[in-house]
Amino acid sequence: SRTGVIEAILADCKDPDDVVEIARVMVAESKRALITRVSPGHLEALKQAFGQDKLEWNSRARTVVIHDGTPAPRTGGVVGFVSAGTADIPAAEEARVVASEMGCETVAVYDVGVAGIHRLIPALDKLKARMPGAIVVAAGREGTLPTIVSGLVDVPVIGLPVSTGYGAGGGGKAALLSMLQSCSTLAVVNIDAGFVAGAYAARIANMIAAAYAHGKEDRAGQAKEGNGNKKGIKRE
Amino acid sequence: SRTGVIEAILADCKDPDDVVEIARVMVAESKRALITRVSPGHLEALKQAFGQDKLEWNSRARTVVIHDGTPAPRTGGVVGFVSAGTADIPAAEEARVVASEMGCETVAVYDVGVAGIHRLIPALDKLKARMPGAIVVAAGREGTLPTIVSGLVDVPVIGLPVSTGYGAGGGGKAALLSMLQSCSTLAVVNIDAGFVAGAYAARIANMIAAAYAHGKEDRAGQAKEGNGNKKGIKRE
Amino acid sequence: SRTGVIEAILADCKDPDDVVEIARVMVAESKRALITRVSPGHLEALKQAFGQDKLEWNSRARTVVIHDGTPAPRTGGVVGFVSAGTADIPAAEEARVVASEMGCETVAVYDVGVAGIHRLIPALDKLKARMPGAIVVAAGREGTLPTIVSGLVDVPVIGLPVSTGYGAGGGGKAALLSMLQSCSTLAVVNIDAGFVAGAYAARIANMIAAAYAHGKEDRAGQAKEGNGNKKGIKRE
Amino acid sequence: SRTGVIEAILADCKDPDDVVEIARVMVAESKRALITRVSPGHLEALKQAFGQDKLEWNSRARTVVIHDGTPAPRTGGVVGFVSAGTADIPAAEEARVVASEMGCETVAVYDVGVAGIHRLIPALDKLKARMPGAIVVAAGREGTLPTIVSGLVDVPVIGLPVSTGYGAGGGGKAALLSMLQSCSTLAVVNIDAGFVAGAYAARIANMIAAAYAHGKEDRAGQAKEGNGNKKGIKRE
Amino acid sequence: SRTGVIEAILADCKDPDDVVEIARVMVAESKRALITRVSPGHLEALKQAFGQDKLEWNSRARTVVIHDGTPAPRTGGVVGFVSAGTADIPAAEEARVVASEMGCETVAVYDVGVAGIHRLIPALDKLKARMPGAIVVAAGREGTLPTIVSGLVDVPVIGLPVSTGYGAGGGGKAALLSMLQSCSTLAVVNIDAGFVAGAYAARIANMIAAAYAHGKEDRAGQAKEGNGNKKGIKRE
Amino acid sequence: SRTGVIEAILADCKDPDDVVEIARVMVAESKRALITRVSPGHLEALKQAFGQDKLEWNSRARTVVIHDGTPAPRTGGVVGFVSAGTADIPAAEEARVVASEMGCETVAVYDVGVAGIHRLIPALDKLKARMPGAIVVAAGREGTLPTIVSGLVDVPVIGLPVSTGYGAGGGGKAALLSMLQSCSTLAVVNIDAGFVAGAYAARIANMIAAAYAHGKEDRAGQAKEGNGNKKGIKRE
Amino acid sequence: SRTGVIEAILADCKDPDDVVEIARVMVAESKRALITRVSPGHLEALKQAFGQDKLEWNSRARTVVIHDGTPAPRTGGVVGFVSAGTADIPAAEEARVVASEMGCETVAVYDVGVAGIHRLIPALDKLKARMPGAIVVAAGREGTLPTIVSGLVDVPVIGLPVSTGYGAGGGGKAALLSMLQSCSTLAVVNIDAGFVAGAYAARIANMIAAAYAHGKEDRAGQAKEGNGNKKGIKRE
Amino acid sequence: SRTGVIEAILADCKDPDDVVEIARVMVAESKRALITRVSPGHLEALKQAFGQDKLEWNSRARTVVIHDGTPAPRTGGVVGFVSAGTADIPAAEEARVVASEMGCETVAVYDVGVAGIHRLIPALDKLKARMPGAIVVAAGREGTLPTIVSGLVDVPVIGLPVSTGYGAGGGGKAALLSMLQSCSTLAVVNIDAGFVAGAYAARIANMIAAAYAHGKEDRAGQAKEGNGNKKGIKRE
Ligand SMILES: Nc1ncnc2c1ncn2[C@@H]1O[C@H](COP(=O)(O)O)[C@@H](O)[C@H]1O
Ligand SMILES: Nc1ncnc2c1ncn2[C@@H]1O[C@H](COP(=O)(O)O)[C@@H](O)[C@H]1O
Ligand SMILES: Nc1ncnc2c1ncn2[C@@H]1O[C@H](COP(=O)(O)O)[C@@H](O)[C@H]1O
Ligand SMILES: Nc1ncnc2c1ncn2[C@@H]1O[C@H](COP(=O)(O)O)[C@@H](O)[C@H]1O
Ligand SMILES: [Mg+2]
Ligand SMILES: [Mg+2]
Ligand SMILES: [Mg+2]
Ligand SMILES: [Mg+2]
Ligand SMILES: [Mg+2]
Ligand SMILES: [Mg+2]
Ligand SMILES: [Mg+2]
Ligand SMILES: [Mg+2]
Repeated sequence: SRTGVIEAILADCKDPDDVVEIARVMVAESKRALITRVSPGHLEALKQAFGQDKLEWNSRARTVVIHDGTPAPRTGGVVGFVSAGTADIPAAEEARVVASEMGCETVAVYDVGVAGIHRLIPALDKLKARMPGAIVVAAGREGTLPTIVSGLVDVPVIGLPVSTGYGAGGGGKAALLSMLQSCSTLAVVNIDAGFVAGAYAARIANMIAAAYAHGKEDRAGQAKEGNGNKKGIKRE
Repeated sequence: SRTGVIEAILADCKDPDDVVEIARVMVAESKRALITRVSPGHLEALKQAFGQDKLEWNSRARTVVIHDGTPAPRTGGVVGFVSAGTADIPAAEEARVVASEMGCETVAVYDVGVAGIHRLIPALDKLKARMPGAIVVAAGREGTLPTIVSGLVDVPVIGLPVSTGYGAGGGGKAALLSMLQSCSTLAVVNIDAGFVAGAYAARIANMIAAAYAHGKEDRAGQAKEGNGNKKGIKRE
Repeated sequence: SRTGVIEAILADCKDPDDVVEIARVMVAESKRALITRVSPGHLEALKQAFGQDKLEWNSRARTVVIHDGTPAPRTGGVVGFVSAGTADIPAAEEARVVASEMGCETVAVYDVGVAGIHRLIPALDKLKARMPGAIVVAAGREGTLPTIVSGLVDVPVIGLPVSTGYGAGGGGKAALLSMLQSCSTLAVVNIDAGFVAGAYAARIANMIAAAYAHGKEDRAGQAKEGNGNKKGIKRE
Repeated sequence: SRTGVIEAILADCKDPDDVVEIARVMVAESKRALITRVSPGHLEALKQAFGQDKLEWNSRARTVVIHDGTPAPRTGGVVGFVSAGTADIPAAEEARVVASEMGCETVAVYDVGVAGIHRLIPALDKLKARMPGAIVVAAGREGTLPTIVSGLVDVPVIGLPVSTGYGAGGGGKAALLSMLQSCSTLAVVNIDAGFVAGAYAARIANMIAAAYAHGKEDRAGQAKEGNGNKKGIKRE
Repeated sequence: SRTGVIEAILADCKDPDDVVEIARVMVAESKRALITRVSPGHLEALKQAFGQDKLEWNSRARTVVIHDGTPAPRTGGVVGFVSAGTADIPAAEEARVVASEMGCETVAVYDVGVAGIHRLIPALDKLKARMPGAIVVAAGREGTLPTIVSGLVDVPVIGLPVSTGYGAGGGGKAALLSMLQSCSTLAVVNIDAGFVAGAYAARIANMIAAAYAHGKEDRAGQAKEGNGNKKGIKRE
Repeated sequence: SRTGVIEAILADCKDPDDVVEIARVMVAESKRALITRVSPGHLEALKQAFGQDKLEWNSRARTVVIHDGTPAPRTGGVVGFVSAGTADIPAAEEARVVASEMGCETVAVYDVGVAGIHRLIPALDKLKARMPGAIVVAAGREGTLPTIVSGLVDVPVIGLPVSTGYGAGGGGKAALLSMLQSCSTLAVVNIDAGFVAGAYAARIANMIAAAYAHGKEDRAGQAKEGNGNKKGIKRE
Repeated sequence: SRTGVIEAILADCKDPDDVVEIARVMVAESKRALITRVSPGHLEALKQAFGQDKLEWNSRARTVVIHDGTPAPRTGGVVGFVSAGTADIPAAEEARVVASEMGCETVAVYDVGVAGIHRLIPALDKLKARMPGAIVVAAGREGTLPTIVSGLVDVPVIGLPVSTGYGAGGGGKAALLSMLQSCSTLAVVNIDAGFVAGAYAARIANMIAAAYAHGKEDRAGQAKEGNGNKKGIKRE
Repeated sequence: SRTGVIEAILADCKDPDDVVEIARVMVAESKRALITRVSPGHLEALKQAFGQDKLEWNSRARTVVIHDGTPAPRTGGVVGFVSAGTADIPAAEEARVVASEMGCETVAVYDVGVAGIHRLIPALDKLKARMPGAIVVAAGREGTLPTIVSGLVDVPVIGLPVSTGYGAGGGGKAALLSMLQSCSTLAVVNIDAGFVAGAYAARIANMIAAAYAHGKEDRAGQAKEGNGNKKGIKRE
């Protein structure tokens, strides 16, 4: 199964007709086309062109998936998504849709309150039970949440700063800088870069799933030195 | 085996005597102590206190490891390190030492020229042959290399901006912004944050190694639903 | 007793002889003189001029108090000081010395780890038991701690950003912006402005102590309308 | 009586229907709901849903309070509000409404001219006569006023920078930086953060009012060591 | 033939009628008038005033050329234009129209993908075959392309940063800083400054063409010492 | 003759011994080695290693050239260098040495006063008489000079901002921004990037010289279609 | 005659009705009211309220003067106004109207081209012939003009940066920084601060005119030591 | 007498021998030479070269004046200098020395406290009694003082920001931005630009003095139309 990154159409600044055209080519080639940052105008044109049943619209992520009936691939990878406030959900959802199209099972925990730590611990426990390979944490304003989550799990955490907040440090700037200064082990993507966060998390999760599968294969087939193509691990 | 992040002593701004003291406690507890950003004064004090044979000094990374004879753990994880210019090596080496202490095998490719693409491709092929679970790419000035590497591999790449370059965008600023704006799938850490880059890469690589091991176990032992503690993958 | 702000001598950039001279005048006038940002050269000159027993040196705060034997006033106000890492202690201590000279009892809780939340809760409980009128929370790097503390207490919290951290957002910038963007109720002072944080906290604590005393007086003396000079409260 | 911080609904970016829904829940639970940054669309929806007599609209603060007839609590705390120009009034009013909902009596002095100092002194005298526990000073452009006020009173002053002014330092930036650099004892909140300023001031004022009440109680009831729960003061 | 820089009318912020008027004067004087940053309103007014056949509209460059039938001059200079993404084309086209009006033959290579290096090499070979005197490379987001192109050719490359990308470094900032920090030999113009890039490239290309012509003349006419006016070369 | 860019050794941050070693290899390969940003320590080591007569030291440019007796190549290209104040000379000289090593004749005009325009015109006339292919103009503080020079010549001008000036816009920032905003046709390099400015100018000048030579050859030898390797011009 | 600064109504952000009301009061008190940053809506309301013949509208300055027939005072002061491009005229005109209302004669020289110095010298000669007491120079983009003008006159020059230009340093930033870094003797006001520039220039010019008048008086009336109230000069 | 700006030698970054040499030439030409930003090394060399009695050293301004016995010119202009804290004095003194060398009488008021307004009013009264033509106000940290002074006088005020203060807005940045945002009529120079502030103030004061003298002359000599050369005023 494929672990690389999905091609997607960034609708922003593109003509609705052009988006439809590119999507048509992509579906023909790859069976499924992901379109991000979709405006109402784009959505209308896509609905006209492909019809409702070939089109999956996620209003919070502002994404559309066009397909020919073929379902998204399933890799066995699992990715978690955490956000605190409602303003962070669009970015987190954009990331989630991308990871899903890249074959991952996704687990979202959006009900974690900023005000108190008490709601976070049980929410993370629920998430950990699903054994994610990577966790995307979306946070705006002061951007604390990824630091705290990364201190409580041993899974790679991707900090996704969100462009909320006014005044000094607003528009996601304080959140980005906080994550870069984090005392926890954290990697970050740019402000509102849900697409990158989702694709990066899926890359990790898919490699883990593949490694597990390789482990099983190797055991089953008396793995011989050097004949494999398994990534990221040293085999004996 | 442990996949979490290592505790380390940041020597910067600390008194040499305090560093020795903290290291002594840490070795007693954990058998090995990693000390980063070590000045000549710190080094001298550590040599006096622990003796040459209990001390591993990496002059490019400016790190010291103190141990009681116990070797670093081995997890089976593999991490790659790439840099272009000589000025980027200290940050890359700091990352490499951290990943190594966290149990990973490390593969460094530092001879990749900035001027021409031709040297990069064979270097990456050599690196891919070792099947790394993650690749840290250190780059200063305009910070192009992580973007290019991430476009040529399907392994998670961690961009590590390095504080080289003078004038506008100098001190690693252009490199950091370039990586955040990258068209490739890339996660970044802060400027010169070799420690974070190495620990993050090791986290990924160790999870992959663990997943491979779990795969073998599960196959061997007629894995039953829900009895495991395997991370990041969906098991059937 | 006086609840206003203390005059102090900022030694930074001043000639040691000048500092001695100004201190001499201030002690003559006010019995105690506070000198901040004291270098070794200043310290030496002050020791020569006043002798060890008229001088209180706080090496972490880099403050000196010169006095004529008169103890600091006691107002009954209580101020708490919290910091996470060792690098934050100098700023927190500068604040603490100022509040102490302004008559407050001070309670410092510096053993709160950044890595885990678990050490924070018991530390805060210990602090709350002392009933502080205000809490100064010093934090560098990503500056999370004031936000979290303010969410756990109902006392005014003063965020004191500390100039730690390298790279983007370093030197206290991310910490300051985080605190300004905080979702908790928080007021902030400038980076490393321990003096202002301490004086502000003492202002609050001293008003609270005065109000308590006024309450007792009023009750004791059949308080008559309009004869008082009690601040910050509506009296019946 | 409660001295903590009020929950409020930030209407900005929220759907009018959602705002109505959240307000309904909040009124049911807490009897009064505060809604800030209310647009004409939100206002219309709230009027439709709750009717004029259950709704208090402050057009300068752009706030709505919905209630079930229950009046706001009264804590005895007093908060002052000062602004110079007309452009600073919306931020100051937002702060004032928040403090009022948190139980404080509020005193606003908005007629202080920027051009001359002469109008300020009598205005402050009028304010001081009301014995506020904290003073919020809103200022845009060069943001001088909080510094001057704090030099003339011994009450905690909260600097509230306002996003006025064009060119370099415009949008509240010069005001914020000036307040952070102030030679007076001053704590600040972010640009236009009227909500935080009001809640912070109310926290202080409410603690002072509570201390006064405790003083009276203690006197009345032969206070015994250690049996109280009074904040911010050392009791004998 | 003229090698200096063309006069053009920046339509931005100008009244459509004024633009028509200035264009009329310029055509009368110079036979051709170039108008840049043309809005639909300007275009309409120009069409009304001059008619379709005296008007060349480039919708991607947003430029109009008005002429009296006289063709653009031909200098023999050749300029190349490279861009990666579709968002970079408007800036590149603006540059191309300017160079063309200044007498150069232009060669555009806009199909170079950002994702893979493989498409770049053949595209550059095609471009080199046309022997350009200068190459304009337009790039947004992380702005890598000019650095890479300059490393593969020995022709002067002009980096043209384009205002694409959101978040930190967005709006062309990362692209500009990257180009200024480039390890390759590169000169840059401001963000979206297609006009300057085109004029600068044409200046170079026209000087080269003139030098070639001078070489031929000199050979033909037994060039005598000191009688020429040929630029940029030392003649024997 | 070669028109590409010279390799050079950036001594900054390199160990003197390493610089000697790299220089030795480069001289062996290329007959001449250019070393930039040379400190007194580097200079001493180079003198020891190579002896005075194999070493050309430019104290203003802080460059060293090591050679085996072979003179620098001569391409026939001519480059001009202009600066206003004395503080701009080091950057201009670094550029000049680079262009010279790349085979160009160099013409420096450093006596142009900032205060009055009157000295500039005759200085430029002197420079133009030498027919430069490109002109590097170094300017600090407000960076006006490149704009003015470019308005008076029709040769490509490279703006080289210099890190002079204190306060806002100091360190070359105002100069760089001014040049990017210039109304003249100007390309710029980074602050203090004398190396890049010199190499870029030499690239242009060398192409012009080559074109002139090609013109003569073609005339001499009945140039046939497509058999040449002449750059930057369209041949008939 | 009055040399102080005029009161004006900044219409920006004010309700048209409020502007009318304030203007009515001001005319009653002061006979003339100046209103700046006037939108079409404000203009309409003012025309309705006061009628065409009591209203002077300057469409480029976007100012309105309302009067009761009383002409502006005449102080004898003279102020010059210089700008290069058409985009700078609105700021220059705003300044001019303010100086005029403050009693100065104004001389505007707006036809000075940025491209060539040749047009500047005769324009300045024309201006100098009118003997201005101060000169306001408005400049956008790279903001060179005030530096050049100040080098050619010995009258105080006020640099007025204008918010033109896109990309780095755009919106007046490069212009402001250039002026602050200027090698000439120059004082500056904020970007687009035409009001301040005009008022400042008028203050200077009016003091000069008053000094001239005082000189005449003193001569006429056997000036006695100490009986005068003449500003800015030492009298014998 | 000359009212233009003085030439001076900026010693910063210049070799002591070069400074001596340039001073020698300047004294020969102009009788007096002003040298600014003088280090101890420069001072020593100047003392050696010229001897104590030809040299005036101002240790706070860090300026030296070398002369041949000729006193500074006297123009009759008067300039005032105001500062609040001790840290602002060096910049104010640099300005004062420049104005003095340009012929002005100078009046310094450095004892104005930042903490209270009460000390300012009498200090300003003292200053106004001397009838200055311009006032330089030096202020660091939050930079309030120029705004306040300008609101209390009708003389042109030059704001001189001083590089004091740490943290956000430190190094003079908040002071500069505050002055640019000032509601008073204020023109500013760059941070620490004492030289420019002094020269600008002297330009104004000298024009005023000249106008006064012209007034007397005109009255004395039956002034005829057009025969004068008097600046800045309209003559009848
Ligand atoms: N560490 C400090 N940070 C900020 N302000 C201080 C500090 N120490 C003293 N101050 C204040 O700075 C002023 C001292 O200024 P000076 O007259 O230069 O000694 C007084 O108002 C002090 O209260
Ligand atoms: N002063 C300089 N400024 C910028 N780049 C330089 C300078 N000197 C040498 N270089 C270039 O920097 C690279 C040298 O890097 P290194 O391998 O560290 O010596 C080469 O590509 C040189 O051409
Ligand atoms: N265009 C303008 N720019 C800056 N300040 C102005 C402008 N127009 C009027 N003012 C000043 O701003 C103040 C008017 O403020 P307001 O009370 O809001 O009308 C007065 O002090 C005016 O002198
Ligand atoms: N402290 C200073 N600040 C700014 N400019 C100065 C200063 N001292 C001298 N100057 C000016 O700097 C120039 C001297 O430059 P230079 O030719 O390098 O000596 C002259 O125009 C002086 O008027
Ligand atoms: Mg958050
Ligand atoms: Mg790089
Ligand atoms: Mg912290
Ligand atoms: Mg204000
Ligand atoms: Mg790009
Ligand atoms: Mg210059
Ligand atoms: Mg301009
Ligand atoms: Mg100040």
